[in-house]
Amino acid sequence: MATTKKSAGRPLTQMDKRGALIDAARSLFVENDYEKVSVRAIALKADVDASLIRYYFHSKMGLFSQMLKETLAPMFEKIQQTNKQFAASSPEDILTTYYTLMSQNPDFPKLIFRTANLAATEVNQELQANLFAIFPTTRMTIFDQLKQADMLKSDVDIMCAKMSFISLLVFPFLMPDLIKQAVGIKTNPEFFQKLAKHNASLLRHGLIADESKPSQDR
Amino acid sequence: MATTKKSAGRPLTQMDKRGALIDAARSLFVENDYEKVSVRAIALKADVDASLIRYYFHSKMGLFSQMLKETLAPMFEKIQQTNKQFAASSPEDILTTYYTLMSQNPDFPKLIFRTANLAATEVNQELQANLFAIFPTTRMTIFDQLKQADMLKSDVDIMCAKMSFISLLVFPFLMPDLIKQAVGIKTNPEFFQKLAKHNASLLRHGLIADESKPSQDR
Repeated sequence: MATTKKSAGRPLTQMDKRGALIDAARSLFVENDYEKVSVRAIALKADVDASLIRYYFHSKMGLFSQMLKETLAPMFEKIQQTNKQFAASSPEDILTTYYTLMSQNPDFPKLIFRTANLAATEVNQELQANLFAIFPTTRMTIFDQLKQADMLKSDVDIMCAKMSFISLLVFPFLMPDLIKQAVGIKTNPEFFQKLAKHNASLLRHGLIADESKPSQDR
Repeated sequence: MATTKKSAGRPLTQMDKRGALIDAARSLFVENDYEKVSVRAIALKADVDASLIRYYFHSKMGLFSQMLKETLAPMFEKIQQTNKQFAASSPEDILTTYYTLMSQNPDFPKLIFRTANLAATEVNQELQANLFAIFPTTRMTIFDQLKQADMLKSDVDIMCAKMSFISLLVFPFLMPDLIKQAVGIKTNPEFFQKLAKHNASLLRHGLIADESKPSQDR
């Protein structure tokens, strides 16, 4: 699993080791179900001693939770920012942040989707609680704020706006390979970059009342 | 599982029985993995003799395949229709057809998604081959036709248009309950009706070059 031997390469700093554990955990949890990933396998992939997991994260669950939090941090910051100071361009700013982030971890949204869909066993419920503890989605107020400020097209319903926004945000990363093949779509970083612009434009033209106002019409 | 006893109710006609098997299969395959659904359970739920499955569909796989085909038939007809005669409103026509259809079977898209994502075992590959044999997605040419006719906004890329279209189409039916709760969305037939209009408007404003031309601007 780990391609490097402990004896090889330069010595890792403490922060390197912590980061390596986060990266190894992300990669293993994305690929496998939670209970199939052992603390030992994470340490092996990170090429550090397994005791460091307890030291930094207390437990496998702690590492799982911290990995989610740190991976999604730039997205949450952007949401908090738009909550404080919103603009007509806020939905597309959030979308662009998410696409940039997920282009580096294109299978990460599958982990979130899979975790949210787990059957309600005790461990699974703890996983889900950890997932939603860090999820600031209830606090994503951008559409309410735009509506109140009369910046949405007059017939736009907030719940519909949220649903279409989240659909455009996450489904491109969830689409099964077989369906991509069937419809002739190839995803790679360049495609996601193009798609971010395309979907931003779709949101702007489709939701925003006066596109010319925010001076970002194409 | 079946709530009616064989002795109860009026006698079923042959077509009733065939239809009852399709309905029972849809409901059981949506809820459970393919291999966990027995021919006997389907017959029991349909309240008909199991030998009729062999008679009408040859096998469980034949029934699975036929059930997919018949459930998606109205969608495929609409796609074929728009391929023959396209208009600026074609994408939203397809979307509306899909929403109307899936409002009656809101978990059906999950079956398609799950099937497309199965690990490539022998049985699974047969399931997937059956799924894609009936899928006319490669033949959905609407965006290519609109582009050629200069009816898309000039900067719209066809692959991006397909991706956003499919995202808006299917993700609302795939969103995990936990995420719906977290963002404050409740799905029911009325919501899907409202969302169909909302997403149709999003596609119209976002993709179509001259919205006034098809005379369907709100």
